[in-house]
Amino acid sequence: MKNKFTSPVLSGIKNLRGKLGKSEQDKKIGLHPGALVHVGKKLQEEEKFTLIEYSSDTFKEYEILDLSELKGRFKTGNSYWLNIDGVHNKSTMELLGELFNLHVLVLEDIMNTEHRPKFEDHVEYFHQTLKMITLNRQSIEIESEQISFILKKDLLITFQEKTGDIFQPVRERLKTAKTKIRSRGTDYLYFALTDIVVDNYFIVLDTLNEISEEIEDDIFNDPSEKSLQVIQKNKKDLMQLRKQIYPLREALIKLNNNSSALILKMNKPYFSDLNDHLAMITDMLENLRDINTGLKDMYLSSISLKMNKVMKVLTIIATIFIPLTFIAGIYGMNFDIMPELHWEYGYYMVWGIIVVVTIGLVIFFRKRKWL
Amino acid sequence: MKNKFTSPVLSGIKNLRGKLGKSEQDKKIGLHPGALVHVGKKLQEEEKFTLIEYSSDTFKEYEILDLSELKGRFKTGNSYWLNIDGVHNKSTMELLGELFNLHVLVLEDIMNTEHRPKFEDHVEYFHQTLKMITLNRQSIEIESEQISFILKKDLLITFQEKTGDIFQPVRERLKTAKTKIRSRGTDYLYFALTDIVVDNYFIVLDTLNEISEEIEDDIFNDPSEKSLQVIQKNKKDLMQLRKQIYPLREALIKLNNNSSALILKMNKPYFSDLNDHLAMITDMLENLRDINTGLKDMYLSSISLKMNKVMKVLTIIATIFIPLTFIAGIYGMNFDIMPELHWEYGYYMVWGIIVVVTIGLVIFFRKRKWL
Amino acid sequence: MKNKFTSPVLSGIKNLRGKLGKSEQDKKIGLHPGALVHVGKKLQEEEKFTLIEYSSDTFKEYEILDLSELKGRFKTGNSYWLNIDGVHNKSTMELLGELFNLHVLVLEDIMNTEHRPKFEDHVEYFHQTLKMITLNRQSIEIESEQISFILKKDLLITFQEKTGDIFQPVRERLKTAKTKIRSRGTDYLYFALTDIVVDNYFIVLDTLNEISEEIEDDIFNDPSEKSLQVIQKNKKDLMQLRKQIYPLREALIKLNNNSSALILKMNKPYFSDLNDHLAMITDMLENLRDINTGLKDMYLSSISLKMNKVMKVLTIIATIFIPLTFIAGIYGMNFDIMPELHWEYGYYMVWGIIVVVTIGLVIFFRKRKWL
Amino acid sequence: MKNKFTSPVLSGIKNLRGKLGKSEQDKKIGLHPGALVHVGKKLQEEEKFTLIEYSSDTFKEYEILDLSELKGRFKTGNSYWLNIDGVHNKSTMELLGELFNLHVLVLEDIMNTEHRPKFEDHVEYFHQTLKMITLNRQSIEIESEQISFILKKDLLITFQEKTGDIFQPVRERLKTAKTKIRSRGTDYLYFALTDIVVDNYFIVLDTLNEISEEIEDDIFNDPSEKSLQVIQKNKKDLMQLRKQIYPLREALIKLNNNSSALILKMNKPYFSDLNDHLAMITDMLENLRDINTGLKDMYLSSISLKMNKVMKVLTIIATIFIPLTFIAGIYGMNFDIMPELHWEYGYYMVWGIIVVVTIGLVIFFRKRKWL
Amino acid sequence: MKNKFTSPVLSGIKNLRGKLGKSEQDKKIGLHPGALVHVGKKLQEEEKFTLIEYSSDTFKEYEILDLSELKGRFKTGNSYWLNIDGVHNKSTMELLGELFNLHVLVLEDIMNTEHRPKFEDHVEYFHQTLKMITLNRQSIEIESEQISFILKKDLLITFQEKTGDIFQPVRERLKTAKTKIRSRGTDYLYFALTDIVVDNYFIVLDTLNEISEEIEDDIFNDPSEKSLQVIQKNKKDLMQLRKQIYPLREALIKLNNNSSALILKMNKPYFSDLNDHLAMITDMLENLRDINTGLKDMYLSSISLKMNKVMKVLTIIATIFIPLTFIAGIYGMNFDIMPELHWEYGYYMVWGIIVVVTIGLVIFFRKRKWL
Repeated sequence: MKNKFTSPVLSGIKNLRGKLGKSEQDKKIGLHPGALVHVGKKLQEEEKFTLIEYSSDTFKEYEILDLSELKGRFKTGNSYWLNIDGVHNKSTMELLGELFNLHVLVLEDIMNTEHRPKFEDHVEYFHQTLKMITLNRQSIEIESEQISFILKKDLLITFQEKTGDIFQPVRERLKTAKTKIRSRGTDYLYFALTDIVVDNYFIVLDTLNEISEEIEDDIFNDPSEKSLQVIQKNKKDLMQLRKQIYPLREALIKLNNNSSALILKMNKPYFSDLNDHLAMITDMLENLRDINTGLKDMYLSSISLKMNKVMKVLTIIATIFIPLTFIAGIYGMNFDIMPELHWEYGYYMVWGIIVVVTIGLVIFFRKRKWL
Repeated sequence: MKNKFTSPVLSGIKNLRGKLGKSEQDKKIGLHPGALVHVGKKLQEEEKFTLIEYSSDTFKEYEILDLSELKGRFKTGNSYWLNIDGVHNKSTMELLGELFNLHVLVLEDIMNTEHRPKFEDHVEYFHQTLKMITLNRQSIEIESEQISFILKKDLLITFQEKTGDIFQPVRERLKTAKTKIRSRGTDYLYFALTDIVVDNYFIVLDTLNEISEEIEDDIFNDPSEKSLQVIQKNKKDLMQLRKQIYPLREALIKLNNNSSALILKMNKPYFSDLNDHLAMITDMLENLRDINTGLKDMYLSSISLKMNKVMKVLTIIATIFIPLTFIAGIYGMNFDIMPELHWEYGYYMVWGIIVVVTIGLVIFFRKRKWL
Repeated sequence: MKNKFTSPVLSGIKNLRGKLGKSEQDKKIGLHPGALVHVGKKLQEEEKFTLIEYSSDTFKEYEILDLSELKGRFKTGNSYWLNIDGVHNKSTMELLGELFNLHVLVLEDIMNTEHRPKFEDHVEYFHQTLKMITLNRQSIEIESEQISFILKKDLLITFQEKTGDIFQPVRERLKTAKTKIRSRGTDYLYFALTDIVVDNYFIVLDTLNEISEEIEDDIFNDPSEKSLQVIQKNKKDLMQLRKQIYPLREALIKLNNNSSALILKMNKPYFSDLNDHLAMITDMLENLRDINTGLKDMYLSSISLKMNKVMKVLTIIATIFIPLTFIAGIYGMNFDIMPELHWEYGYYMVWGIIVVVTIGLVIFFRKRKWL
Repeated sequence: MKNKFTSPVLSGIKNLRGKLGKSEQDKKIGLHPGALVHVGKKLQEEEKFTLIEYSSDTFKEYEILDLSELKGRFKTGNSYWLNIDGVHNKSTMELLGELFNLHVLVLEDIMNTEHRPKFEDHVEYFHQTLKMITLNRQSIEIESEQISFILKKDLLITFQEKTGDIFQPVRERLKTAKTKIRSRGTDYLYFALTDIVVDNYFIVLDTLNEISEEIEDDIFNDPSEKSLQVIQKNKKDLMQLRKQIYPLREALIKLNNNSSALILKMNKPYFSDLNDHLAMITDMLENLRDINTGLKDMYLSSISLKMNKVMKVLTIIATIFIPLTFIAGIYGMNFDIMPELHWEYGYYMVWGIIVVVTIGLVIFFRKRKWL
Repeated sequence: MKNKFTSPVLSGIKNLRGKLGKSEQDKKIGLHPGALVHVGKKLQEEEKFTLIEYSSDTFKEYEILDLSELKGRFKTGNSYWLNIDGVHNKSTMELLGELFNLHVLVLEDIMNTEHRPKFEDHVEYFHQTLKMITLNRQSIEIESEQISFILKKDLLITFQEKTGDIFQPVRERLKTAKTKIRSRGTDYLYFALTDIVVDNYFIVLDTLNEISEEIEDDIFNDPSEKSLQVIQKNKKDLMQLRKQIYPLREALIKLNNNSSALILKMNKPYFSDLNDHLAMITDMLENLRDINTGLKDMYLSSISLKMNKVMKVLTIIATIFIPLTFIAGIYGMNFDIMPELHWEYGYYMVWGIIVVVTIGLVIFFRKRKWL
């Protein structure tokens, strides 16, 4: 219970490259809370604003160049989806906060792209933050992007870190007349977008599952040090996913239990369906963790099994030849008086002994099932 | 806390066979939620509809060829069991949804044969999904099939993936007059069918238990690499079962706490009995998991014990013969002046030394209990 | 997430002896629920019924040959204890169900001797099932027997699998006039019998504790493969006990929270005392599990320590003699020109080198604390 | 799921010394519940009763020889502390039960010195049982003694197993006029005594912490088999402490949530402070458990690291000399025709080869960082 | 279940340096509860009192030399922040207790610098204790200091162990007119200070994360015993942090659920934001623990992999040369009759055999992938 727990840890590390304490979070120390600072890597320079206006009958898509254009744009009866690509611009955020009456802490959360998934009911609007996890099919890499939602009556604002086409399928459906999505309000739109995010988790987890199966095959056939590295990386990926998925599950349960009028009663079952999907994802995640742990154990034991086989060969060869070499050594001695040396069949006798000893040892090993 | 967590994992894998992201779940990305898409392997091509009409006095079984025949078929006073084999046909599902007023998300769940076991109370009807796990006695393989139930007043609809005889014993009981099942309504029928599913879990777990006992014997007698593979496979099977059984338990507890009029009060004790059975199954499952983990530990330690024995033999032979060989080597040297070589009993003396050293080492090993 | 998870497991097992799926539970598949089938091994053929009638003043014990004698036997004011040995007879059970108005599912549970400990309040009566675990002092074996209780107003029915004397001490106390047990009703009797069962758990756990201590001594002195087997068996025994004790604890908590008039207020503290005892038993059980795991770790590490010692001897002998043998080998060569061979003190010089090398290596080992 | 789980365990144990089932708890089997039997080792023969009478103004201490003296001794306005050393005498307990109207089960718990810490509200009095854990500074041993409290209005009864001075500091404070303890009633006294017990836990845990640090140093410098034994013992001590501390924490939370008038409102904060202390103790305990587990892992890995170093030396010496010995062996052969033997510089060439091979191998080892 | 659990532990420890039981907590045994004793290391001798008086319009900072100056200093309408550096002076504490009407147990907690983080609502004031964890950028060491807060209406008292500049950024903001902090009351100030503490946790955890990454690189490239020590130290640091962070989280949840008027409604979102941050910190902490455990496993397995490689070289060299040496030994024998010795190509034949055996073994090893 010392007051100061030293960490000679740091002196034991070769090069900390001077980056200690220069993390993203570090930027914010000492600033007043609610300070609008972008945390995370800026994924693109420019910002892009898109407004979609739709109702059962109409669909219009506008590129917005100046946010101030938005004033007075919203008419009752229509639903609106405002999509914002890029969350690094403080003045944009402040303008949005003013226009839509958002709390400064909400804006701060949106700009902190390393935030934990969360759901908050601010009475007049909902605020949801989550991570889009996608599989980049070119580089076969897993990428993560923070998405924030603001759901107001008849208006959904979505924030993405960079311009992308992940929401394209929903946009397509919106364009089509007489689809469910046109007539069920912005809360259904909100659900549809979240659903895409959740569906992507399935793909990513399925991919990790396939990788696990590949590694398992590798381990059985030819366990290499590479396998261990892959297992370790898999573990880290799973930890990262876990960090996103559990808070998201909490957030969705909170949303589901919410009785605000922002979610129409007829759309409730869709949100409860989302919860089901997340429960399945959590199951898959836990399974994968167990499988991964199992793989590490298997790897280690198959390495040690392989080692054992190598050792057994040494043992067998050594235990056979060491006594034989001794026998040969005996008759290589130069004593004046060594009667066996002068026997007519002395040499053949030695060979006889060698054969007998070898057979004896082989039988001994066979009996003990070592051969 | 990087924004993009790379996975060199994938590049480390030999052949991902191009199947990445082509999973079943993948089909549904971007589709509107509630889209009726069959997820899973189609187990048979044709569909089959069977309607059973029964009351305390009557029992009639019809093969239905066209679902539209069903309209107006249902009379009050009678109970009905509609069994549907094959859940892959979208138009069938839509027709059923219309006929029996089922929510589109319920239909979606029924068609997704990889769904998590669940129970939902939709006021007018219950929806339950679970997995039938059976032991195929021919191939000695464990098979899983998704079963869904829709319980309405006086009507039970069951969905199976393929035509099978798992519900045959209940059908037989239904045919027999004056059995409890004839007089207690569709909720009792629903219970009886679920009970069959649960009973099958017992059989499967008993089988896994027997396999564990076999492996244990194997490990004690002759631990082979095969044993480890079997243990690993067992672990996976248990994980799969766990994934089905825990949500099912939750679902049944939910059903048990439900106070809907769809379950007659007199049938309640039967459902609570089901819960008891699932508790026992959960206990068995956890026991098996513990046993399996224990087996792996035992396997690894018996491998290492075996290795130790091999090593000990090497050690003993080597430590005895290495000094002896050295002695022989000494007198194999060709120095002009080596007095011992010319002693009359020199050679016999060497043999004497060899015998003394050997006996000394054997005593040393005996004392340390290595021999 | 495949629809069919194969288990090549089974083909890897040498002989499954054709018993797959022929477990006790298997008997019940397809039967209607509530079917009265005896599950478990029949411990004795005959049945035995004993009725004890008692009040503060009276005590009478009858052997009942025909259960129908029981009708009209019960008078108000007196307390009754009906003990039934043998639960395998279906017709007996049906008769009892009729006589005492017991639900068919309760009878089914009583006949299933592999049932999980449970407590149920059926308003008119309580139903409790638990396992008697005893130490057979002859064979030093642990035995388990299922005991069921039906507690009605002024009547306690107990079901045992075989005739035994476990309840003898209570019977003795009942015979004695003016004991507490005579005046406090059947609920106190019910408590007293349960208390005996719980006390036996203490004995069994104490025994397992003593065994653990013995093994610990063995491991420190001379770890043999036998020890590991004993540890493994201990683990299984503890798992079995756990399976009985946890549900029993749950059952007793349920009983304790029950406010039925079947338990007199004055007897409540006794039941809460039972709960205390079970909490202590649970603590002991968990301690024993931890100790057992610790023993396994200790065993493995002491095996590997022993191995290390053996290896060290090999290393030391080999590292000393291998260079020496090399030196002897050099001067055993037959080159025409090898000046050392003709030196007068050549041979003694070699011995000098040997002594120096040996002493050097011994010092080296000593320094590194390997010797 | 067999009905009888055999334990060949017992036959595998060398000598169970016939003590099976002769535990302390065993005494009580078959006795009626509430039977007053002393469980545990009797720590002293004689009993001692001390009565302290105090109020803000007065303090008197009496040695009581006969408990019947106590009748009519208690006056309103004064507070009383009755301390009883020795809990093994049945008749004393019965007398106390009668005098102070205590339930027989409470007396039974007090006499069972192996009881689990507990708190019970009996409306007219509180009953608390806990363990005093002290560090014996002479023998440097940890000792445990059961303390029970009965708190009635204006009267506190404490039960100790043996006469000791653990409560001395409180007695001293009581003697001093105008201290808080004189004016705040028996509930404050009760708190003060419990506080001493809790403070002793801190000392014991600090000691175990220091021992852990010593072992850690030992392991880094020179891991001996002794260290492992100490770690194992530490683990057991921690398990024992855990068994006492967790139930005590539960008990104190129960006491804290209790709204009985036996605890004056002004004294409440003191009891809540006790809870804080126990939370800290629990944290320390869990930390120690983690540290201890870490030590075991460290021990095992440092043993295996040490072994690896030994093996590496063998490997290096063997791999260098084995080929060299082979070369020497070649030229020790006695073939008639071996041209090299007759070369003028043959012998020196062999030495050349030996030097080259040695240097080559050393470079090889250096490169691989094995040397 | 013995009454006295001995600890031969202590006798097994070389030198306990006589410090047993002389811990800080030890000071307090036997003292009356609420005794004002400083627990912990005194970090500085002198005390320092600073009073800041501020409102939307004004800001004044006073150095207070004598606490009695404070009387009558506080005017309504203004907010006050009293900062106290040094908590070891009993009389200061008593004076503060009197001046601001603080409970003696609160003062005791403030003086105990080893206290667990906690939050208490004393109706008239809040009391919060937490640990400031900072990274000393000079010595690259992690330091911990206890901070206590007393929040009263319009007054915040902060206690630090030593004079430091951790709160400097907030002081700066306070000096600036028209900042949020000037107009939102002392509860906002309280939040702002706590926020700084929490932000520092992020930095420390980020640092530990970077250290983990460094170690991981080290392990892959060149696992040294040093790495293990660093991992072990990291584990301890994480345990220490965990001990501070979990109770703090509890405390903040308690504060958040508190509905006292001491926290203005408009400031509530800020406190809920703090909770979010702590949830993220907890996630990071758990991730780091997992990573650290993974590192230890990786270290151990890479050590054993390295060992395996060393062993494989020994095996290969030994298995090749041992048979060859035997062959050479054979023809070094001195029998009178050894026909091969007189063959013209005998010597070359032996070389032939040697080459064949060597190639054979190399092929054998290649096939088994050992080479």
